[in-house]
Amino acid sequence: MLIEDALNENCVDKSVELKGWVYRKRNVGGKIFIVLRDSSGIIQCVVDRGVVNEDSWRQAEEITRESSCIVEGVVRREPRAPGGYEVKVTRLKTIGLSAWFPIKGTEGVDYLLDHRHLWIRARKMQAIMKIKHTVLEAGREYFNRNGWWEVTPPILTGSACESGATQFEVNYFGQKAYLSQSAQLYLEALIYSLDRVWSLTPSFRAEKSRTRRHLAEYWHLEAEAAWYGMEDMMKVTEELVSYIVSRVLEEREKELKLLKRDTKILENTLETPYPRIKYDEAIEILQKKGVKISWGEDLGADEERVLTEEFDRPFFITHFPKEIKAFYMKLDPENPNLVLGFDMLAPEGYGEIIGGSVREDDYNVLYKRILEVGLNPKEYEWYLDLRKYGTVPHSGFGLGIERTVMWIAGLDHIRDAIPFPRFRERIYP
Amino acid sequence: MLIEDALNENCVDKSVELKGWVYRKRNVGGKIFIVLRDSSGIIQCVVDRGVVNEDSWRQAEEITRESSCIVEGVVRREPRAPGGYEVKVTRLKTIGLSAWFPIKGTEGVDYLLDHRHLWIRARKMQAIMKIKHTVLEAGREYFNRNGWWEVTPPILTGSACESGATQFEVNYFGQKAYLSQSAQLYLEALIYSLDRVWSLTPSFRAEKSRTRRHLAEYWHLEAEAAWYGMEDMMKVTEELVSYIVSRVLEEREKELKLLKRDTKILENTLETPYPRIKYDEAIEILQKKGVKISWGEDLGADEERVLTEEFDRPFFITHFPKEIKAFYMKLDPENPNLVLGFDMLAPEGYGEIIGGSVREDDYNVLYKRILEVGLNPKEYEWYLDLRKYGTVPHSGFGLGIERTVMWIAGLDHIRDAIPFPRFRERIYP
Repeated sequence: MLIEDALNENCVDKSVELKGWVYRKRNVGGKIFIVLRDSSGIIQCVVDRGVVNEDSWRQAEEITRESSCIVEGVVRREPRAPGGYEVKVTRLKTIGLSAWFPIKGTEGVDYLLDHRHLWIRARKMQAIMKIKHTVLEAGREYFNRNGWWEVTPPILTGSACESGATQFEVNYFGQKAYLSQSAQLYLEALIYSLDRVWSLTPSFRAEKSRTRRHLAEYWHLEAEAAWYGMEDMMKVTEELVSYIVSRVLEEREKELKLLKRDTKILENTLETPYPRIKYDEAIEILQKKGVKISWGEDLGADEERVLTEEFDRPFFITHFPKEIKAFYMKLDPENPNLVLGFDMLAPEGYGEIIGGSVREDDYNVLYKRILEVGLNPKEYEWYLDLRKYGTVPHSGFGLGIERTVMWIAGLDHIRDAIPFPRFRERIYP
Repeated sequence: MLIEDALNENCVDKSVELKGWVYRKRNVGGKIFIVLRDSSGIIQCVVDRGVVNEDSWRQAEEITRESSCIVEGVVRREPRAPGGYEVKVTRLKTIGLSAWFPIKGTEGVDYLLDHRHLWIRARKMQAIMKIKHTVLEAGREYFNRNGWWEVTPPILTGSACESGATQFEVNYFGQKAYLSQSAQLYLEALIYSLDRVWSLTPSFRAEKSRTRRHLAEYWHLEAEAAWYGMEDMMKVTEELVSYIVSRVLEEREKELKLLKRDTKILENTLETPYPRIKYDEAIEILQKKGVKISWGEDLGADEERVLTEEFDRPFFITHFPKEIKAFYMKLDPENPNLVLGFDMLAPEGYGEIIGGSVREDDYNVLYKRILEVGLNPKEYEWYLDLRKYGTVPHSGFGLGIERTVMWIAGLDHIRDAIPFPRFRERIYP
């Protein structure tokens, strides 16, 4: 039986057996109060010397924080206890006695990262992981309910998708290979078979800088569809984000509350469409607000944060200068200095959670773009083939799962959106 | 509109617009027959010189195999056409004229792997990918419907889970890191927070041998649960496999038929429990059937194939000698030369699709086992910690997605269970 099921009026005066870990313990005059935790919550268990047998009393005396145990007892109402109920213990059995637990919760960031395998037991971490569970489930459900096909693109690849500078190199049977930065190029190949495809895979970026929103390894929800234009694909991303947020609001109320998340802006997010501004307008807004930026420069975390002040829900920036975006984005037919790309930014300072675009579908233009950005067309031979054998207009996007969780859960730093974060110099545990 | 929706009595005499690629084309006396394909199926489109305008006729004459196009026309019954209906074309517009398509389908394995980005368009590959879609969806649904928590364990790790010999090494900001062979050790850490967890991640094994059932990169569905014993966990795997197969039988009938899959044994699979034999019995059976094997030797693909002849559904082998299994498996209290491990083998010669076990939860025993197998306890410090701070009895398993797809789809070789297979020397495309 889970603790949350015992915290229930129907259980009052009933016998229960609970399995969990000691979250807190204190001795008060002949009684030992053990707060037990499991995946579902916490409950107060009262061991009364006058009630339990000698063996259970001795075990209650000896048991330490984070020990695992099995508790039998009777549920009763107790307004002062967390959740409003407690267990009057009839029997306590320690299963795994814990050594002195090395975490209080007040330690510094690096210490907690060194003890991450233990710190993930914290109620805050538990709540975030549950929110992530729902984000992942809802994201996939959106695609499956709408008739998209899930595919499994490769992680080990022979060439770069985004940028050679941030690639991790793998010794692949003596050859050089790289960890995927994005499944996009492979998803593009797959639309010729399945029309509309999506994947959820780890992506890797060897980012040298430590920031609040970069991980070296993150989960990437990507989609690609034949015959979809810019507006079609932006609509997909709006519906997707709105669906994810609605599911989290429905199913993770308890966890959002535990994290003290103000949900007003999340509720705004349910309503689509989201506002759209062009890169040109973004630059104007920034300049008006005193940010030093010129047309043609990329928007970093700082600029994005300033822009989010203008909106009370996610919003799009579109039509970027081609120089600051990837070679595969389709040039805007109305202004070939721009690309038909879009970013979706989360409000409240969070910034980019989705990047997408129409893809260049013309063989000659794409070939020229590859040369222009200094890449070797030979390495993109198979990708170019897709424009040679029945090319179609198509679009796609990628959503960063941890950035989305970070925003929805209202986290300060992306490291807590993943149980074992990987970034520069952090590979343990 | 998708082709499968047009192949419908309700569409007869109605106008439709279809988007797709030219699957086949032939000219027969003033008429051009184009078989169009999309993700949902194929349909015959008849372009009649006397009906369409000059422009559409010219495009129909020029269009090549694998070109993308938009077809407008009227659906009519045609018993001789695939699916029983055809489209009488009123307008044809070529979108992406294809160069001469370099695949007929009769080429050799290596040629088709070199052209994998194009070969995935084949109807057989499409059918397999759709089956995989359903396998993935059903696998996750099983866990989510039963209250397990999805988690995202790391892919980049500092130490080995299974065997150092088959690890891929990554240059991680100048340090050595490895690609995960299994999420298990991390899932074990996570049960202390979430009780019952699962993950779906790519796993990597630098297998030097080329076999019909090994990939260097494959998808791994893994689960771990606190308080679960051997029989509890075997029951989970049975229910999981039965649920996956039931969903494929329900939703992928068309694809199984296209692959000419005999589904009798898949139907047997719906009924649980599956037969269980111990390793001892497996050796006896093999010896009786004339296979040269002694007690203590590991079962390879050949031995497994012989054993599958004895069963008409999946079955378990349990209680292996500890020498042939991983250090983390719990020793059998009734015979400490054996481990409480289990493999589930798919019938029809396919062999192992699941490996699982009870995990060693005693700090001292685990420490000793790590030394026994020649590993360095220092590298497993965080993993040993899990036995120090509130250890619990627990069990888990991993299911190979591609092996499961290979069996369910009845494939000869595992390479076709993944769109871009990775194995020794194969990294392109």
